[in-house]
Amino acid sequence: MPLNSSNMLKVIEDFPHQCRTAMQLPEGMSVSGKVDKIVVCGMGGSAVGGDLLKIFMHDYKIPVFVVRDYRVPGFVDESTLVFAVSYSGNTEETISAFEDASGKKAKIVAVTSGGQLSAMAKKIIKIPSGMQPRAALGYLFFPVLGVLANSGIIDVKGLEIEEMLDVLSKTEDFRKEGDRLAKKIFGRTPVIYASDMLRAVAYRWKTQFNENSKSPAFTHVFSEMNHNEIVGYQNMDRNKFISIFIRDMEDNERIKKRMDITKEIISSRVDVQEVFTKGSGLLARMFSGIYYADFASYYLALANKVDPTPVTVIENLKKKLK
Amino acid sequence: MPLNSSNMLKVIEDFPHQCRTAMQLPEGMSVSGKVDKIVVCGMGGSAVGGDLLKIFMHDYKIPVFVVRDYRVPGFVDESTLVFAVSYSGNTEETISAFEDASGKKAKIVAVTSGGQLSAMAKKIIKIPSGMQPRAALGYLFFPVLGVLANSGIIDVKGLEIEEMLDVLSKTEDFRKEGDRLAKKIFGRTPVIYASDMLRAVAYRWKTQFNENSKSPAFTHVFSEMNHNEIVGYQNMDRNKFISIFIRDMEDNERIKKRMDITKEIISSRVDVQEVFTKGSGLLARMFSGIYYADFASYYLALANKVDPTPVTVIENLKKKLK
Repeated sequence: MPLNSSNMLKVIEDFPHQCRTAMQLPEGMSVSGKVDKIVVCGMGGSAVGGDLLKIFMHDYKIPVFVVRDYRVPGFVDESTLVFAVSYSGNTEETISAFEDASGKKAKIVAVTSGGQLSAMAKKIIKIPSGMQPRAALGYLFFPVLGVLANSGIIDVKGLEIEEMLDVLSKTEDFRKEGDRLAKKIFGRTPVIYASDMLRAVAYRWKTQFNENSKSPAFTHVFSEMNHNEIVGYQNMDRNKFISIFIRDMEDNERIKKRMDITKEIISSRVDVQEVFTKGSGLLARMFSGIYYADFASYYLALANKVDPTPVTVIENLKKKLK
Repeated sequence: MPLNSSNMLKVIEDFPHQCRTAMQLPEGMSVSGKVDKIVVCGMGGSAVGGDLLKIFMHDYKIPVFVVRDYRVPGFVDESTLVFAVSYSGNTEETISAFEDASGKKAKIVAVTSGGQLSAMAKKIIKIPSGMQPRAALGYLFFPVLGVLANSGIIDVKGLEIEEMLDVLSKTEDFRKEGDRLAKKIFGRTPVIYASDMLRAVAYRWKTQFNENSKSPAFTHVFSEMNHNEIVGYQNMDRNKFISIFIRDMEDNERIKKRMDITKEIISSRVDVQEVFTKGSGLLARMFSGIYYADFASYYLALANKVDPTPVTVIENLKKKLK
């Protein structure tokens, strides 16, 4: 086992507790005045929090946009609520987008552990420092949810949160399934699919395999993959790729059928593994879908004989960018 | 050369002419009344038209959403302009989204060559039938642009269109570069990158490699890939993967620097090929970026000894879905 890999395991196992703590952080913070658009600015794990919010608010009247870029779109104005989310507070894209949104007089809330962002923003939710940003997803998401609930923009039911925490607390189920999947994946490039609705869950799997396991990994969604990517399977090789379907009981019936038939078709080329979200509320289903990936990517790191924690390449890149 | 591959080549070479014809199709059609959100519903090539519109309208006050799903988001209402785009008119996701949007009293314009959609929609732009949907991108995009221009929602400069047609008309440049790239790619899985701004261009490359070349292909964007996917290159192999960067003179200076440094870092693992968009206006830059992929995927099909035109897997899937 590589040095320090146990640190990452501890952080992963602590995730349900992190979520519970994260929910307390807004401490009643709210925004006032008209809000007719929500924008979440962030990169990597911080942006995934935005993607999850977009799922959560799919049926609301207020549109949610996730910006992974240096600028915000032209429609950002004083009735736009912008969350600038950066674990370190020093993510240059997020700082630039923050400045752009400030110039457009948006209402801005920063979620960060410190850095430049905490010096620039007026409204801040301070989150604990010293973690790998990707391991802090609870801290990056729940404060955003809390501010929106406190502001009367969304309705988050206590029961839904309790269900999620209850589902996640069965850590051993996720660990075992992650371990099983890592063994199947080892030596291949995983391609992860979910419904378009849960695209953020599939994307999180991909990024966890990239960062924790130092492995290539790709992602696409149903049913869009039925219109293009499925054709590429004609030249796919089971020694090189493996496909993982994240399935959800609330998937549209046609999506369920598409997943079944696609599995049947592509199984002649690659191994297809299926993973099922748990729980009935959206929060439980989203976060259970994600939680498997934490363990699967951790065990794949061990199999690849790499330390899951450091992402040296990113650190080197940042140095060269200065 | 596989049977019929010359058909696809002719259609590709005719693309500049297709764009010119497509622009005439709205014949003055416009929408009236308040529009404060635009939604494009479609799958595959039809959705790419929506992605391109999103780029084109980045600095406008009206947000654009692309929906590749059976339902539209909860914010769709009577002041939302919905384009239901389906080449065949029988794409089940688009028909379902059309019905959902109708129920929400959205203003709807259908763009289709016929099918159920043309029977259901009141406002229709009829496009020529008999093509592969992915080869009809001009027909799927420019009518949307035309309706928005006719409605006074966007401003499309005649000069910008002329520049685009002029850039695309130098077909031979794109053909040669596509041929060169196909030779580099052959035997490997291409991973295509552009800036977040031009993500639709990179995505179009991916889908063309899937459908025309019957090859796996994946895509991601800058700078998001610097926050996760770059780590996966530690375990990437130049015999299996090749990376293609689509570069644009209007890319943010930091994105340009990130692409340079990323190329330097990952070149130790894979071959990196760069392609440059042409022209100065956004339309010329977007469509020139896309046009290379038509040729590259065509020549990769020939190298793979497959016919670029039929997508038998998708046809089989549709039969099984009935």
